[in-house]
Amino acid sequence: MSGAALKLYDLAGADDNCRFSPFCWRAKLALAHKRLAVETIPWRFTEKDRIAASGQGRVPVLVDGDKWIADSWNIACYLEDAYPDRPSLFGGGAGRALTCFYVGWADTVLQPAMVRLIVRDIVDHLHPKDRDYFRKSREERLGKTLEEVVADRDKSLPAFRASLAPLRTVLKDQPFLGGASPLQADYVVFGGFQWARAISAFALLDKNDVVHAWRERLLDLYDGLARKAPAVAA
Amino acid sequence: MSGAALKLYDLAGADDNCRFSPFCWRAKLALAHKRLAVETIPWRFTEKDRIAASGQGRVPVLVDGDKWIADSWNIACYLEDAYPDRPSLFGGGAGRALTCFYVGWADTVLQPAMVRLIVRDIVDHLHPKDRDYFRKSREERLGKTLEEVVADRDKSLPAFRASLAPLRTVLKDQPFLGGASPLQADYVVFGGFQWARAISAFALLDKNDVVHAWRERLLDLYDGLARKAPAVAA
Repeated sequence: MSGAALKLYDLAGADDNCRFSPFCWRAKLALAHKRLAVETIPWRFTEKDRIAASGQGRVPVLVDGDKWIADSWNIACYLEDAYPDRPSLFGGGAGRALTCFYVGWADTVLQPAMVRLIVRDIVDHLHPKDRDYFRKSREERLGKTLEEVVADRDKSLPAFRASLAPLRTVLKDQPFLGGASPLQADYVVFGGFQWARAISAFALLDKNDVVHAWRERLLDLYDGLARKAPAVAA
Repeated sequence: MSGAALKLYDLAGADDNCRFSPFCWRAKLALAHKRLAVETIPWRFTEKDRIAASGQGRVPVLVDGDKWIADSWNIACYLEDAYPDRPSLFGGGAGRALTCFYVGWADTVLQPAMVRLIVRDIVDHLHPKDRDYFRKSREERLGKTLEEVVADRDKSLPAFRASLAPLRTVLKDQPFLGGASPLQADYVVFGGFQWARAISAFALLDKNDVVHAWRERLLDLYDGLARKAPAVAA
């Protein structure tokens, strides 16, 4: 126990140190951006009872004193409002509103496309008690077995890479989505890449891609917070 | 001639009042947002010589005194910097940086998808002197005839509407992409819809879509600037 005032329930795999949730990474980078120490608590999909005080059953869940805050977007907004003297995650009210579209794009375009490439790899890293839950819930949602979902992933890769074109438009001209320095918008998009990196060796990005260079910059932030996390990919 | 200090070269069709360029609409709404009067000058694709002073051959081109500014993004940034006392298009430096991704998404995802639905309809509204240029340049770019491009558009429509999911994530919670009031990000995305509306009766949006309701709000802005423009669609 670190004694940090803030605690974050953070999805973990069979190894306590395998932390792969893209949404938890959005929250962890938001906390680091705010220079707030946090104790992350490994949590598994099937441990709904441990976060019942949040009123729902998914992570990340932030605990700040007697407050329980669920959902990475709610957590970012909570941190921005509760710790206004720390570096801003949005750069103002307009920035906060404009960041919503990044959440929409990551949730409806980027991460669903990643699922079709790497979802099968997740199983190998899950805690045994989560495996049946994960496979059953995901196969119901996707309408096929996880093996079927990723069967043609080599063929799907060019379309996935092409779908990152909006990021390239930005990153050819500035180092971060937030401009000269990163903002929550960067963490929202990066969460997906960090998720993939934790559990899959499948190379999502070409090394000559400006998105790859941006990902490297994100990995280096906050004393290498994301780079130091156990990962399957480089 | 209105005597306005600012002039904007604005793509026009056979009818001088048919103004359909999505990029010109981004610029016209930026000018309206800044409460700046502008004289729009009808211009055709083949009149490269008239905007040679801008150093390139496409519109919008803004003329402010002896300055010629090409490209809708450059124009928005110019207006923000040259008229800082007027309402901000970005809501600050972070907002400006965060708006780049909207440009990337509109340019690489939204508008290319719209092209595949409505590009043939544009021909019917072009000035006769532009028709050969437009068909030849677009058919070369698209690798097929304009008629072939749109042949299956009814079948493509569900995928197009699904591709708007990131907008819905935002617009279910706030009236504009910019938040409680519109910003340049709204104009960047709206430009595509206003382009389609000017030259095609094809119904891109379902009337129950939150994106449709947002489009209606954009049409109403600035005394109905966009709604009053001649249009084929409602």
